Amino acid sequence: MIVTYRTQRKVRFQHCDPAAIVFFPRYFEMINSVVEDWFEDEVGASFNQLHMERRTGVPTARIATDFTAPSRLGDRLDFELTVDAVGGASLTITITATCAGELRLRSTSTLVYVDMNTGKPMPWPEDFRQRFEPEHNTGKPA
Amino acid sequence: MIVTYRTQRKVRFQHCDPAAIVFFPRYFEMINSVVEDWFEDEVGASFNQLHMERRTGVPTARIATDFTAPSRLGDRLDFELTVDAVGGASLTITITATCAGELRLRSTSTLVYVDMNTGKPMPWPEDFRQRFEPEHNTGKPA
Amino acid sequence: MIVTYRTQRKVRFQHCDPAAIVFFPRYFEMINSVVEDWFEDEVGASFNQLHMERRTGVPTARIATDFTAPSRLGDRLDFELTVDAVGGASLTITITATCAGELRLRSTSTLVYVDMNTGKPMPWPEDFRQRFEPEHNTGKPA
Amino acid sequence: MIVTYRTQRKVRFQHCDPAAIVFFPRYFEMINSVVEDWFEDEVGASFNQLHMERRTGVPTARIATDFTAPSRLGDRLDFELTVDAVGGASLTITITATCAGELRLRSTSTLVYVDMNTGKPMPWPEDFRQRFEPEHNTGKPA
Repeated sequence: MIVTYRTQRKVRFQHCDPAAIVFFPRYFEMINSVVEDWFEDEVGASFNQLHMERRTGVPTARIATDFTAPSRLGDRLDFELTVDAVGGASLTITITATCAGELRLRSTSTLVYVDMNTGKPMPWPEDFRQRFEPEHNTGKPA
Repeated sequence: MIVTYRTQRKVRFQHCDPAAIVFFPRYFEMINSVVEDWFEDEVGASFNQLHMERRTGVPTARIATDFTAPSRLGDRLDFELTVDAVGGASLTITITATCAGELRLRSTSTLVYVDMNTGKPMPWPEDFRQRFEPEHNTGKPA
Repeated sequence: MIVTYRTQRKVRFQHCDPAAIVFFPRYFEMINSVVEDWFEDEVGASFNQLHMERRTGVPTARIATDFTAPSRLGDRLDFELTVDAVGGASLTITITATCAGELRLRSTSTLVYVDMNTGKPMPWPEDFRQRFEPEHNTGKPA
Repeated sequence: MIVTYRTQRKVRFQHCDPAAIVFFPRYFEMINSVVEDWFEDEVGASFNQLHMERRTGVPTARIATDFTAPSRLGDRLDFELTVDAVGGASLTITITATCAGELRLRSTSTLVYVDMNTGKPMPWPEDFRQRFEPEHNTGKPA
């Protein structure tokens, strides 16, 4: 599976702790914003459309992250998102952030597509699924 | 190893997203605050003492979290922290949050004790180590 | 008008910037949390009841804040909330934070009671209004 | 005085509250980030240079904000920063945010240039001052 999405984030004052490095919860805001931009730019629905119009959500069920080197105020982080596996209502992705080629974090998370009114998982729409699996869109759940 | 620390957090407006459930990066702020209180209440150094007086830090090197059920505005979360393993400069802990007995998250993280000036790992002070391993204080690295 | 509510907040790692003092947007999270606790403890409706059950909200229409001295990691802040004025659908309050008697901030804000579905202002419920103006209802100052 | 700086921000999931509108403390993160970009792009020092290299800071001493209309998930906000007055060690600016021409907020704040080691105010460097007052660079403090 070779879906890759790239975007950049600047390490801002608001991200940094008293050691002047990124406070790790702020990385998760960045990671969420990368998923948000990917949905809007590539998957085909903005988070406003997902949440407000379709009344669906993509909560994170599991996320595991290695922080391999600290990031400092002013650093430009190159984020890369790759799809690992697509299930009936789930999606597993890996996001990395590097700065000038140095790996800063690698995070693998599983999102679930849910009906916001009931909180229950629901199948991915077919057009989303096609964007998740561009190469071999076999509908085979991972 | 049976070090356990318990504390409570209220799910506040600032933690909640447009679905009125906790936005997952906010959980990591709560998790960090639990570690902060544990250091102050049990380990023997507040984060102010750690960072400002000793010029040390405890950055998170790895964290893996399962979110098993959503938390809603106003929920009281019971957090429980357990020490899993103590290394020369590292510490692995598991934190759970439950609400009225229902598991909301289970998170395992590895912290590293570092010199804030150099960013290099350094051995845990002996008094910290004793608080991490109260039962069998053998100094045996995990 | 003599409604006063008091509560305390600890300056946490998550509040502090690379200068190891509170980053000012974090003060507004604390201020909001003070209003939230005041509603739950004294006014008679938690934010969950307000937002989820009554489908109302209390957005901030205006807030002016003087930051008179910096707050540092580990400081205990004493917050005090006083009602300045009550309008048909609005409420003006002043919140101060002090640490060991030193004023850290003084903030005056105007909240508006709104219907969350329409976003339109609506009159305060009579029981709320009585808690805002205790001395010309029951006369008993809180 | 006619210094104006413009930039845009997208209203993200992380900014929104259970009413699906921007939670007001998040606006202050956006406002701070606008000042940060202005310093880097126009004034001539990034926040990293200011804080880490020069060991100076620009804490906010006072900020007053009117929130005139709510902003929703996905809105594109046009921020505009104007210099109101320059003092020896202070700077008063007004920032507005509009969306499709509708005013969302107007915020006036006073920043102070401080030595991070002592926390004391210090005079603006001459090159900064010139960028604050491009039209009539008289050095006359406001």
